[in-house]
Amino acid sequence: MIVRDFDDIVRDARDRVISDAHWSSVRMLLADDGMGFSFHITFLEAGSEHTFEYKNHFESVYCMQGKGSITDLATGETHQIKPGTMYALNEHDRHTLRAEEELIMACVFNPPVTGKEVHREDGSYAPADEMAD
Amino acid sequence: MIVRDFDDIVRDARDRVISDAHWSSVRMLLADDGMGFSFHITFLEAGSEHTFEYKNHFESVYCMQGKGSITDLATGETHQIKPGTMYALNEHDRHTLRAEEELIMACVFNPPVTGKEVHREDGSYAPADEMAD
Repeated sequence: MIVRDFDDIVRDARDRVISDAHWSSVRMLLADDGMGFSFHITFLEAGSEHTFEYKNHFESVYCMQGKGSITDLATGETHQIKPGTMYALNEHDRHTLRAEEELIMACVFNPPVTGKEVHREDGSYAPADEMAD
Repeated sequence: MIVRDFDDIVRDARDRVISDAHWSSVRMLLADDGMGFSFHITFLEAGSEHTFEYKNHFESVYCMQGKGSITDLATGETHQIKPGTMYALNEHDRHTLRAEEELIMACVFNPPVTGKEVHREDGSYAPADEMAD
């Protein structure tokens, strides 16, 4: 059994806290935990906007706190996000996420991320077997 | 892209709300969503105690609200649970969960549950291919 605490990770395991422009993510579970998925608590700054396209991953995102919206860039459709809203990128959907207030999200990736990915210019993460490390 | 709202499911999609003795679970994602995992928001009643052993699934559980504990029945070790605590049953660990206050948990199962499982006497869910339906 693995037991981890969010506050302990933030204080003691900084390699599990990934930050980029206007977002940060605390990786509670990563690929090497062997669960077959990774689990992250992700923060998106109020006023920020992000375009992602996880070509090599499925991702589900559950809003725990905050307010914003997501636009499906294939259809142009925009959905409001509030606590209790979940979106799942079951078609590797290219999307734009906007945080009107800070968003705190519980995210699941399949396959699991290793924690060493960087977002590429197209908004994707490389598949694990293409990573330099 | 799948977008679902917790409140809408509770109001309109009761087949996605599973209840048993002193717990209930809102299934935001199930096997037929094709994500390779399922995602549930689960409520454990204050004062309740539960022994589970998911012999055929990995499960991670993130505490969003409440207070309780989990005992690993293989080692006898007990861990406190509070908001921000995550446990992951990476060895199909048999465990007893106690809710001192109502616990609200974000749960991920791999493989995904179908939503038709019942807990067997040993605290497990049957694998999907052994299910009657």
